[in-house]
Amino acid sequence: MYEDPKEVRALIRRGELVRPTAGLAPGYAQANLVVLPTDIAFDFLLFCQRNPKPCPVLEVTEPGRYEPALVACGADLRVDVPLYRVYRNGKLVAEERDVAGYWNDDLVCFLLGCSFTFESALIKAAIPLRHIEEGKNVAMYVTNIETKPAGIFAGPIVVSMRPIHELKVVRSVQITSRFPMAHGAPLYIGDPERIGIKNMKHPDYGDYVEIKEDEVPVFWACGVTPQAVAVTSKPPLMITHSPGHMFITDILDEELAAL
Amino acid sequence: MYEDPKEVRALIRRGELVRPTAGLAPGYAQANLVVLPTDIAFDFLLFCQRNPKPCPVLEVTEPGRYEPALVACGADLRVDVPLYRVYRNGKLVAEERDVAGYWNDDLVCFLLGCSFTFESALIKAAIPLRHIEEGKNVAMYVTNIETKPAGIFAGPIVVSMRPIHELKVVRSVQITSRFPMAHGAPLYIGDPERIGIKNMKHPDYGDYVEIKEDEVPVFWACGVTPQAVAVTSKPPLMITHSPGHMFITDILDEELAAL
Repeated sequence: MYEDPKEVRALIRRGELVRPTAGLAPGYAQANLVVLPTDIAFDFLLFCQRNPKPCPVLEVTEPGRYEPALVACGADLRVDVPLYRVYRNGKLVAEERDVAGYWNDDLVCFLLGCSFTFESALIKAAIPLRHIEEGKNVAMYVTNIETKPAGIFAGPIVVSMRPIHELKVVRSVQITSRFPMAHGAPLYIGDPERIGIKNMKHPDYGDYVEIKEDEVPVFWACGVTPQAVAVTSKPPLMITHSPGHMFITDILDEELAAL
Repeated sequence: MYEDPKEVRALIRRGELVRPTAGLAPGYAQANLVVLPTDIAFDFLLFCQRNPKPCPVLEVTEPGRYEPALVACGADLRVDVPLYRVYRNGKLVAEERDVAGYWNDDLVCFLLGCSFTFESALIKAAIPLRHIEEGKNVAMYVTNIETKPAGIFAGPIVVSMRPIHELKVVRSVQITSRFPMAHGAPLYIGDPERIGIKNMKHPDYGDYVEIKEDEVPVFWACGVTPQAVAVTSKPPLMITHSPGHMFITDILDEELAAL
């Protein structure tokens, strides 16, 4: 069960599946959602174009539209995500099961690729991921690497960290390089201090996982970056998915592969 | 001579190098230029995002800016292209050495990747290109494949065709796949009629080249597509480079490689 993305979205729309989406509709790409007013949509699209590793754009709807016709024909981005967050002027003001009541003709939806796509590719290639084995959220850290700003949007890149066995590091670069629309190749490999991470045991988001002696910390650009940057820019209204409660597309992970 | 991109742009700026840019600053990426008013810039950026093969975006300036700081720090897009075309309401009204006189704070510049990047990769891999050997412009054809529309922008994809030896077709796919920012892998290989091309001997743009018996026509998405589409959408003002007279960036072709 929960195999078909259209059926899963229908359950979510009816409020029968309010849960994190990891593991649902396996093989299909999931997406981060960011909804913004039209007058800053160009700046945000430009921000994504300049920062493709943290912000790989899968689809952008035109102003007022809530159907992502290219990646999930018939879907409704106001109701097909299990849980939403609503921000006003950069402050979280509500968590909602649907956001139809917030909708107006001035809103633009952005769907951005999600790390689930490359994680399942790593697992298929016998590269285990500790946070999944331990049922945790991936560890995420704010770095000292700045995004390339665009209009009102600027701020540091957030990375996710996965401990990789030292003999599998090269392979993990190769595998994730195939998926530029899901953050792609690692941003950095090695000493966390070089990218401004002082204390690995206290991630800025998510849960800490141990790094064993024969493992290397490998850092990928993270889908939290655009949300964190959008929050600091204090748009009058911004709607996103709640962490882990992603939008499920009809696109196979393998359809996103560059090669 | 003509090795350094900054020096070549300085000569162009002084009006001392009014010529097609093929072969100048070898190894450095060249770019198509499209300049549009701000109110349709979001639509055009969205169009590029939805059609990455014909429209690979290298850089977008913010409204009023003419320095492409990310790909050519210090350059001036109003004067650093050897020859410009100016369109009003979709009609070509002037060809100019510089367009500073047309400039206003409402204009947004788009730089899009150019096939020169993958052509030099093919030649380095011992895959000869007939149009270059014969000193011709590449043959380009309007297809029956529609772009994914965005706002006011819609229309068919234009392709460039290169005859490739039947034993080198696979290799040509691999090599050009490395450069998604320069149109990437072919759009189509084989029978031209399947993509709506009736008469190979009469290309819609550029020059016909012979296809020999042991060769296959290979079609790549072409940088003429965004210009052709932009023209048909009849923007009040659009400025582009003149065909073959590209903007030369400071980015190495190899820096654009995906892998």
